[in-house]
Amino acid sequence: MKKGLRLGVDIGGTLVKLAVVDERGLVLKRAQTDALKNPKSLVEAVHEEISDWGEKNFLGTGVAVAGDVDPVRGVVRFSTNLGWTNVPLVDLFRRCGFPKPFHFENDATAAAWGANHLECGGRARNLVVVTLGTGVGAGLIFDGKIYRGATGTAGELGHTPVGGEGVACLCGSRDCLEAYMGGAALMTWATNAYTQKRRSKIPVSPKELALAARRGDAVAKEAWIRGGRALGTALASLLNLLNPDTILLAGGLAKSADLFLPTARKVMMERAFHTPARVVRVRVAKNSEDLGVVGAALLVE
Amino acid sequence: MKKGLRLGVDIGGTLVKLAVVDERGLVLKRAQTDALKNPKSLVEAVHEEISDWGEKNFLGTGVAVAGDVDPVRGVVRFSTNLGWTNVPLVDLFRRCGFPKPFHFENDATAAAWGANHLECGGRARNLVVVTLGTGVGAGLIFDGKIYRGATGTAGELGHTPVGGEGVACLCGSRDCLEAYMGGAALMTWATNAYTQKRRSKIPVSPKELALAARRGDAVAKEAWIRGGRALGTALASLLNLLNPDTILLAGGLAKSADLFLPTARKVMMERAFHTPARVVRVRVAKNSEDLGVVGAALLVE
Repeated sequence: MKKGLRLGVDIGGTLVKLAVVDERGLVLKRAQTDALKNPKSLVEAVHEEISDWGEKNFLGTGVAVAGDVDPVRGVVRFSTNLGWTNVPLVDLFRRCGFPKPFHFENDATAAAWGANHLECGGRARNLVVVTLGTGVGAGLIFDGKIYRGATGTAGELGHTPVGGEGVACLCGSRDCLEAYMGGAALMTWATNAYTQKRRSKIPVSPKELALAARRGDAVAKEAWIRGGRALGTALASLLNLLNPDTILLAGGLAKSADLFLPTARKVMMERAFHTPARVVRVRVAKNSEDLGVVGAALLVE
Repeated sequence: MKKGLRLGVDIGGTLVKLAVVDERGLVLKRAQTDALKNPKSLVEAVHEEISDWGEKNFLGTGVAVAGDVDPVRGVVRFSTNLGWTNVPLVDLFRRCGFPKPFHFENDATAAAWGANHLECGGRARNLVVVTLGTGVGAGLIFDGKIYRGATGTAGELGHTPVGGEGVACLCGSRDCLEAYMGGAALMTWATNAYTQKRRSKIPVSPKELALAARRGDAVAKEAWIRGGRALGTALASLLNLLNPDTILLAGGLAKSADLFLPTARKVMMERAFHTPARVVRVRVAKNSEDLGVVGAALLVE
């Protein structure tokens, strides 16, 4: 990889993270801005944010987006979280004067590439990075290379069926992993459970739900354990199908892994085949917050 | 690939298929023998079968086995169908005097490689071959190469959770695809259904069950449709996670695809994301019977 600085942009459903990244994946400078729903306004706000970063010195711009991205055409085909359909992001970045060349990628895929560099010394073989945020996604590294599938859509782990209570998922199906373990789903279930128990003080975010669970609140604890069971079922299916050597958990919810990972691990070991279960290492990514923005930057040639 | 003839051996739970295969994947000669439970007896019986095939002219022997195979050490770690644990197959083949070098592979993986050559002109990009037999497996080609995972175990599609009635699977879990769509599971369900209806003439094989369904027998039709629903759920999960361009159905049950594929397709389209569902082609392999034995042979360097 060419020595020098690249600009990384990680567009999530709520926040846009920006970073200047060197060829080793080190973050030299960072900022963030709100993820505006209008794509043009968002790109302009990002450009404003980096206006004094000396953009002429950059080797290019890598952009990660939470959604179904066409990396070849630089188009966001679809993003539930951003409410975008067929947004030609490459044109918006080009017109705004961001440093060329560009690389566009799904955010979980970018996170997997970032994890390869930041967590595996660039030597990952068969790595799955599971992003646990509002929704649940995955980035895939197979035999040392990014795997994107036929159209760049691969990695939608959040829609693995996990059995259960017939819970509706935003995708239109039922009993998807995301309908149990996504941040949105966790809060829906917890809010209902608290309301039924006529509790007045209800956690309003996964962070508060984690604090409540750590204080011993039974409803909050059960919310995380229920999510952990769904995650364990999906991970077992993943192990049986893909036999990865490493699974890293990233995204905001990974910070609360102490509340759901023991359950997920137990269910995973019960359901998965012996050989893939024995070899895989499952852990929380150390640099969880930076994986997407660093991966996006490092994908610039 | 070097021009010349290779010996292919495909060891299934019931039968062993043997073939002489040229470098284009053409089968020049074939035979079959029973899959004996004793590994040494099986290998000797296979050797006996090919004794007059002029083995000195072969460039090597490719062996596909229904089970968890270590391709590097040539060991069958585990095979439910054959009842084998840690069988050093490479030693048995070597001692018996089969033509060297050897290549050992899981049967579904070998089938995927055979399908690449026989069905996709050797240019498969992202191909999943689903083997529908007594159990359900899959062979994976990602970005034009065989994907085996960390230990060669990848492809256990049969143990994708598909929701449902809590049916126990031989693997110890519940509601796996194989517990609905495997040949064994189909027959268990159908036999129960017929018995409850006090029917005297009960189909005793998937082949007979297919004939009964085609004659309009309601129980038989429902058995296949129920299997199709489970297959559709698992294929949707596969599409979302892996975004393949082609899914080929192979194995004995693929011959009855007219009875379950329309249902599977419908459920798959309902559950899968738009982009991967739009691009994928799902069809029955034309050379279903030969995929494993040809793929095994062509894997010999």
